Amino acid sequence: MRLATILRDGKARLAAYRGQDLIDLSEAGSGLPGSMLAFVEGGEAARAAIAAALDKAPSSALLDPERTTFLPVLSRPGKIICVGLNYADHSAESGFKQPDYPTLFGRFSTTLIGHRAPMIRPNLSDQLDYEGEIAAVIGRRAKHVPKARALDHVAGYAVFNEGSVREYQFKAPQWTVGKNFDGTGAFGPALVTADELPPGARGLKLETRLNGQTVQSASTDSMVFDVASLIAIISEAITLEPGDVIVTGTPAGVGVARKPPLFMKPGDVCEVEVEGIGLLVNPIAQEEAVRSAA
Amino acid sequence: MRLATILRDGKARLAAYRGQDLIDLSEAGSGLPGSMLAFVEGGEAARAAIAAALDKAPSSALLDPERTTFLPVLSRPGKIICVGLNYADHSAESGFKQPDYPTLFGRFSTTLIGHRAPMIRPNLSDQLDYEGEIAAVIGRRAKHVPKARALDHVAGYAVFNEGSVREYQFKAPQWTVGKNFDGTGAFGPALVTADELPPGARGLKLETRLNGQTVQSASTDSMVFDVASLIAIISEAITLEPGDVIVTGTPAGVGVARKPPLFMKPGDVCEVEVEGIGLLVNPIAQEEAVRSAA
Repeated sequence: MRLATILRDGKARLAAYRGQDLIDLSEAGSGLPGSMLAFVEGGEAARAAIAAALDKAPSSALLDPERTTFLPVLSRPGKIICVGLNYADHSAESGFKQPDYPTLFGRFSTTLIGHRAPMIRPNLSDQLDYEGEIAAVIGRRAKHVPKARALDHVAGYAVFNEGSVREYQFKAPQWTVGKNFDGTGAFGPALVTADELPPGARGLKLETRLNGQTVQSASTDSMVFDVASLIAIISEAITLEPGDVIVTGTPAGVGVARKPPLFMKPGDVCEVEVEGIGLLVNPIAQEEAVRSAA
Repeated sequence: MRLATILRDGKARLAAYRGQDLIDLSEAGSGLPGSMLAFVEGGEAARAAIAAALDKAPSSALLDPERTTFLPVLSRPGKIICVGLNYADHSAESGFKQPDYPTLFGRFSTTLIGHRAPMIRPNLSDQLDYEGEIAAVIGRRAKHVPKARALDHVAGYAVFNEGSVREYQFKAPQWTVGKNFDGTGAFGPALVTADELPPGARGLKLETRLNGQTVQSASTDSMVFDVASLIAIISEAITLEPGDVIVTGTPAGVGVARKPPLFMKPGDVCEVEVEGIGLLVNPIAQEEAVRSAA
């Protein structure tokens, strides 16, 4: 099943795909989950209810995906744990020795944007870079979960563009600021439930394109720590809760590692596509232009 | 005004001090904020309503602070931004060159505990260390706020013990895991509104004691980036929202920098006291003991 958080009549709503059609679940029946978090927390019962409703959804619930406003898959996850240096070729291009423990950092929900929303280049820096990734959304509480059972705790996967302001990422020993500028974390368009994908979303082709030019291309098999390992290792320390998001890292090809560097600028369009999960498209806009238009 | 989040009859409630007495606001009148977040978002009107209610609170609302269960000041802040290396003597003892930009990292709400709750030493590591700090709680949305007006965005301050699992903090280039073990972030007992303290909570004596022995002692004047500077700098990049928390860093004296190192162990009691803000006390307990008792 594929689900998206959309904006309709000024309200966030949960929608689900029926083939190519997008169905507004708030108009598809009663007792359905009203948000992605409710869906994730609702487990198998929520999914069964939606599946039944999709079959008989009225035409008033039908949306044109091309004319729909997509919000981030989840707007305010309890936590967004990002994994750095999780593809060996990217660690090498970044000048880091590959660590034998996951490199984790936090993203805050104020960074999130949805599919087709502008990714914001801040006024402070011209060094806005792309990072195509897959995000795993937690469906069941996890603490001290062994790797063999870790994937039972994943509700689904989505595409993520972990926009990074490189100049600020390296101003201090911790990367937090460069990873947390407002409007730089694109998350969408949809959550694809885990049953529709290979276990751990392994072996999928991930590609990032800037203005149509392929800049990153890799298989998710190349992750140093796969999704099951990440959940097992993180949950030794940190309780993972439904709706928490693990953003699993980016392969080689980022702009800052190119010679000359390639940063994103207003008017550019960045796409991240992951086989079986989806295509996430974001134009780039300058912060002050967005602010003066607001 | 001093306010605490407490547990009573199985529910989180907002309480406020009237002198030494603690008043359960859910029994002190109608229309009062029901949570710390509601208080913070409610601004001056919320404070005025509580002040009026405190004067005439019935005896049924009176709590004995010594017999009250304190929860974290806020249980699920939208973000918890911690500042590392913000006292020059601590940067030196940690072997870091003092950066000229704040060193920021995230804490997740799953780490938080209240006053008198056990701080958890995990099964994975014996290297649980204390870090006495002050936390600033944001009261008004802030983006691109100049330093001169930054303190207008602070609702109040609380004491924080930023418990750190040193072994895990340094397993990878980012400190996130070592700063995010469950049950290691003590936040309390109370929020003291900004009007009761010097601007920016400057010039206050901060002291950490382990089993009665003073292990950290400093003035908050020694911060490299004071609270106003932090808000101005962070808000250039990141929107700060009501209820967000900035944990402002720790002075010299941490256990990992001592020779021999001094880590916390089950049965220890750690206290952090900040002049005018409060005394935060936490016993240390072993993870497996807490889990088997649960």
